[in-house]
Amino acid sequence: MSDSNHQLKALFLNCTLKQSPATSNTDAFIDVASKVLNDLEVETETIRVVDYHVSFGNTSDEKGEDEWPKILERIYASDMLIIATPIWRGDRSSVAKMVVERMDGIMSEGNNKNGQYPTFNKVAGVMVDGNEDGAKKASASIMLDLSEQGFTLPVNAFTYYVGDAGPGPSYIEAGGDKHFFTNNMTLLMVHNMVQLAQTLKANPYRTDVIAIGEKAKQMSD
Amino acid sequence: MSDSNHQLKALFLNCTLKQSPATSNTDAFIDVASKVLNDLEVETETIRVVDYHVSFGNTSDEKGEDEWPKILERIYASDMLIIATPIWRGDRSSVAKMVVERMDGIMSEGNNKNGQYPTFNKVAGVMVDGNEDGAKKASASIMLDLSEQGFTLPVNAFTYYVGDAGPGPSYIEAGGDKHFFTNNMTLLMVHNMVQLAQTLKANPYRTDVIAIGEKAKQMSD
Amino acid sequence: MSDSNHQLKALFLNCTLKQSPATSNTDAFIDVASKVLNDLEVETETIRVVDYHVSFGNTSDEKGEDEWPKILERIYASDMLIIATPIWRGDRSSVAKMVVERMDGIMSEGNNKNGQYPTFNKVAGVMVDGNEDGAKKASASIMLDLSEQGFTLPVNAFTYYVGDAGPGPSYIEAGGDKHFFTNNMTLLMVHNMVQLAQTLKANPYRTDVIAIGEKAKQMSD
Amino acid sequence: MSDSNHQLKALFLNCTLKQSPATSNTDAFIDVASKVLNDLEVETETIRVVDYHVSFGNTSDEKGEDEWPKILERIYASDMLIIATPIWRGDRSSVAKMVVERMDGIMSEGNNKNGQYPTFNKVAGVMVDGNEDGAKKASASIMLDLSEQGFTLPVNAFTYYVGDAGPGPSYIEAGGDKHFFTNNMTLLMVHNMVQLAQTLKANPYRTDVIAIGEKAKQMSD
Repeated sequence: MSDSNHQLKALFLNCTLKQSPATSNTDAFIDVASKVLNDLEVETETIRVVDYHVSFGNTSDEKGEDEWPKILERIYASDMLIIATPIWRGDRSSVAKMVVERMDGIMSEGNNKNGQYPTFNKVAGVMVDGNEDGAKKASASIMLDLSEQGFTLPVNAFTYYVGDAGPGPSYIEAGGDKHFFTNNMTLLMVHNMVQLAQTLKANPYRTDVIAIGEKAKQMSD
Repeated sequence: MSDSNHQLKALFLNCTLKQSPATSNTDAFIDVASKVLNDLEVETETIRVVDYHVSFGNTSDEKGEDEWPKILERIYASDMLIIATPIWRGDRSSVAKMVVERMDGIMSEGNNKNGQYPTFNKVAGVMVDGNEDGAKKASASIMLDLSEQGFTLPVNAFTYYVGDAGPGPSYIEAGGDKHFFTNNMTLLMVHNMVQLAQTLKANPYRTDVIAIGEKAKQMSD
Repeated sequence: MSDSNHQLKALFLNCTLKQSPATSNTDAFIDVASKVLNDLEVETETIRVVDYHVSFGNTSDEKGEDEWPKILERIYASDMLIIATPIWRGDRSSVAKMVVERMDGIMSEGNNKNGQYPTFNKVAGVMVDGNEDGAKKASASIMLDLSEQGFTLPVNAFTYYVGDAGPGPSYIEAGGDKHFFTNNMTLLMVHNMVQLAQTLKANPYRTDVIAIGEKAKQMSD
Repeated sequence: MSDSNHQLKALFLNCTLKQSPATSNTDAFIDVASKVLNDLEVETETIRVVDYHVSFGNTSDEKGEDEWPKILERIYASDMLIIATPIWRGDRSSVAKMVVERMDGIMSEGNNKNGQYPTFNKVAGVMVDGNEDGAKKASASIMLDLSEQGFTLPVNAFTYYVGDAGPGPSYIEAGGDKHFFTNNMTLLMVHNMVQLAQTLKANPYRTDVIAIGEKAKQMSD
């Protein structure tokens, strides 16, 4: 990798239901991806969302005790965002859902001159772990959200670990870090994310969101 | 737009349940996006999948009467793929599901020297229309599929039209081509797709899928 | 309706993101269904979940400030449970997801003699409202959860209101209470729920969950 | 079980992509449930959908070569319907999607005196098998469809087998018939289905769908 990505930053949002210092399987999974990123000279940071007081809502600041603005600031400071969620009931966690609801606030912050959201030219990925079934449903929902909220999704923008049907060991106990398929997916996701982040940094979208809005009005008359 | 994209090609796969010459709302929706692409000097082509005999299956050639190879060839000849599906039962059509099942064959065709699928460096988008509810579920599922099958998804990689709850007019009768939100989404998707396709053409992924497989094996020992 | 259902009770869980006294569209939608139930002599109760301190988790009591036990007690006191959720990002709200995560605790409470969960012989339904797209995805996910957690789902176990594509008026402003399709779905759901609740009260499941577990062990040897 | 269910009939629709006589994992999974039903004196029948020429569409008879009417007739002749689908791309098969699209025709056949669909008082279940991830997404979608199309869903209306993340053995090779969790789910589903089918046979819905339509009109004026 070239020098240019030693400045790249990646942020993981760990959407476990459990506050620190409880052990989080999702955290262990993130560690694997984080190490791959570090090997590619990308700086990484992980936030366990439930360690902050995040209010339910759909704006960038719900006021009062809301600590979402602190997390949003870290998203804006990063080139890559990876939402990592455990599976509960075959779907993303409620915390992961809460996160994308809050990220809708981003879409009201198109404050640069061409109306692009602050997330344009950032790249995103998804990590999902569970003792069983639900990874693709969770991933697909999050990928749609991130795409609409301004992120670009590289080839193979997701990685996951799940065990077989029913209750059973989760990522750590199951040795998910030794699961070939999962590691291969993680490596593919990370390598593609880093390259795409570099490419977009050098070749940002020129899309004029404001002009497009005007054009859409004309088309819809 | 620069000269470089007069060579770009976009392929729409219309996943309506109805064979030609039956009127297809999805076709009318595609026409809007196609015109925007043509204005950006992108060459477009639309295939109505049910006009071909596509066999159920998961490979690139199911032999016998299977005409999927003809469609796959057009995918490979394009820089951008847009899967367009009507909504039935709040989800993508069975034809759209059949298409992504057949596209799994692509993942066995990593025959270039670094193991990348033939779809690497192609960009994808999704269009969904229905008389009501289901666009985001359909889009999310298709986006995950295309991401795993080698495509890159730009900012706002999907656009849709739906009416309100219950039976009601579909895209054509409802004047979907005059629906501001939908036109805005379509313009955003198309502009972002074209730019990302150009960018990836000039800056292709260097990911060595074979080397990553080896690395994954080492990690998983 | 016969006398037997003047004792039937229905509980609505309103999964809006907004605490009281903020106006909730979901509340207005619930009111319509509640009135139909009252006309059928069913007693109704509505809980706005975010007015309680519900902890993230997967058990029936997460201790500390957790007020879920108060809500769970109301579920157990009811014959019918209706989960009502607004749509955010084309999916159920994070609050609705949190609720079904907490309801997993029910599955560890099979404390009667035949191992049935306390929810056996209760009937469930789903209500979803949003300014656009997502009702069927939200409903399907919740229906699966409730089925696994011991509830029976009548014919047409869901009702919803959504507007057309993009931002727009929500249930109250859109006059959702005058939307024929939605009212018809609501009436069907409620009438079928009440009948099924009566029927199950008179004809409870005899399933011996413990004996089935033994049988499953034998089959799996 | 009492005498009354020796007349009960259950129909399995196997939604594999593979025509007979190709081996179908889904068929092997069905056999387990079928045997349990036979032990409960329920008569069973399995149709492999792709062995028939089923046209894409949304009505009960698409004319021409369409053989769906033959399958629909078997649905109407049964008390219990179980849709069994393999997982492809983390979702139900295209064939399973095609089936529920065709079943929409049922909703136009409310020809008895109170407007109930011919499926009222029938019970439904879902079986899903795959080498990995997708069972709950597939099940949830199908359960919503069947509920709207007139079926009642018992407690635990679904059962599934999936292996861990990535390619791997499917039901037969993996010994899914010896997987405790799956067998337990299958037994629960079957026992609950049979009891509910008996109960509904003796206590059919009295819902007057036509009168409800009139009521809905009044409410919506």
